[in-house]
Amino acid sequence: MSIDWSGVSHVTKVDPAEDLPADLSVLGHTDLVIVGGSDGVTEANSLDAIERIAESCDVPVFQEPYSASHVSSDTIDAADFLSIPAVYNGDRANFVAKHVEFFAEAGKKPEELLGASIPVVGDLIASKGREAVADLTENVLAEGYVVQNLDSKAAAESGVDRTYSPDEVAGAALATESFYDFPIFYVEYSGTYGGPEDVEAAAQYLEDTALLYGGGIQSHEQTTEILDAGADAVVVGDCFHDDPAQFLDTIP
Amino acid sequence: MSIDWSGVSHVTKVDPAEDLPADLSVLGHTDLVIVGGSDGVTEANSLDAIERIAESCDVPVFQEPYSASHVSSDTIDAADFLSIPAVYNGDRANFVAKHVEFFAEAGKKPEELLGASIPVVGDLIASKGREAVADLTENVLAEGYVVQNLDSKAAAESGVDRTYSPDEVAGAALATESFYDFPIFYVEYSGTYGGPEDVEAAAQYLEDTALLYGGGIQSHEQTTEILDAGADAVVVGDCFHDDPAQFLDTIP
Repeated sequence: MSIDWSGVSHVTKVDPAEDLPADLSVLGHTDLVIVGGSDGVTEANSLDAIERIAESCDVPVFQEPYSASHVSSDTIDAADFLSIPAVYNGDRANFVAKHVEFFAEAGKKPEELLGASIPVVGDLIASKGREAVADLTENVLAEGYVVQNLDSKAAAESGVDRTYSPDEVAGAALATESFYDFPIFYVEYSGTYGGPEDVEAAAQYLEDTALLYGGGIQSHEQTTEILDAGADAVVVGDCFHDDPAQFLDTIP
Repeated sequence: MSIDWSGVSHVTKVDPAEDLPADLSVLGHTDLVIVGGSDGVTEANSLDAIERIAESCDVPVFQEPYSASHVSSDTIDAADFLSIPAVYNGDRANFVAKHVEFFAEAGKKPEELLGASIPVVGDLIASKGREAVADLTENVLAEGYVVQNLDSKAAAESGVDRTYSPDEVAGAALATESFYDFPIFYVEYSGTYGGPEDVEAAAQYLEDTALLYGGGIQSHEQTTEILDAGADAVVVGDCFHDDPAQFLDTIP
């Protein structure tokens, strides 16, 4: 369960609750796609977006749900990875409680993850069920998030009521690298450009962890500033939906 | 930063706030010692206990603090590992906030971790500081805890107000194995014997994670029941302090 981040410097976040551009060929210029939003996301619109993207380009596709109800065996089959946020400055539900619920649910209902095609015969299903759970969890990626825009829907959805100082961002990055061992650390300014300061603070402690920055990226200059500050990749969302020409300008 | 758990089936938890037996040679029969308590612990009594144990026997010694104030460069040097609990059914402070604070502090004050002997010369200290932080974090072990005795000081200290069902214990175990990647999952009944049910629930999903059970172990039969249920090791605390003969009876 790993991604080679050395070839990934530009990530596109596609909101399945918004209209997708009719022509998805611009995604041929990005290195990875994350399908997820903070409002109006469903299993159906997630699956539709994942399948359309997977058909139109050859980059890895993550599904990033904010609720277990967005996830089904179909979305797990269609996406390459299921990426689950753990929000450091969010409420308890969004750091730990949701994850225990998700995995307790996955453990109780392995047959749903296997699909309906598996014969239900006593110990066999129990044993295959555990394998299915193991398979699922191999495709789960944890993302340590810091959400830095209090006015965003992402903040409201994750119970964030306070932004982190650069020292706290650095602490959360170090905790990710050496304690939680999440493969991704994500600085999220959600709709506003936060500049390089938090990325610089986080980058000093991250070696094995990929560092992503998202929020307000609209130009090649901003992409360069964030990458120069030490991010592995910028995440570009809004202008993918709104302005394909501007989107292309954010490619490194 | 790893322990070979194949040779560890009996762990002794030593409370540094209580009197230690004058003769510590019984610790030659245990496989690992964790120094930690839930009340009255200080840096001074932690260091004293760690040093006396390390002098008297040849097993790995963890320091398990419940506050960053119990940790110093002396305790880090004296113990083999710093094990930090993350309490799944605790409050937010005890799953995530304490850890971010700890690592933010470690990142801001690397010279304190290095001790006073390091020359403070500009970039050198900054660069050595980062190495010191890296060294420290290599000796940090995360423990995913479930605290199952609401009347215990451990529950009060961690903000636990609800025990987990066996399904939730299994979910937390699966989250540990595949999401948080903590090396240890710890079922803590703190002073009461909880029986094998939670251990069986957790064991089904743990392969890379060591499974520890602690609470009320007073006999060889209880040790056997817990190990047969799938635990890697039992953790024995109270009777080490109170009754060395009974302590020896808990050895597998």
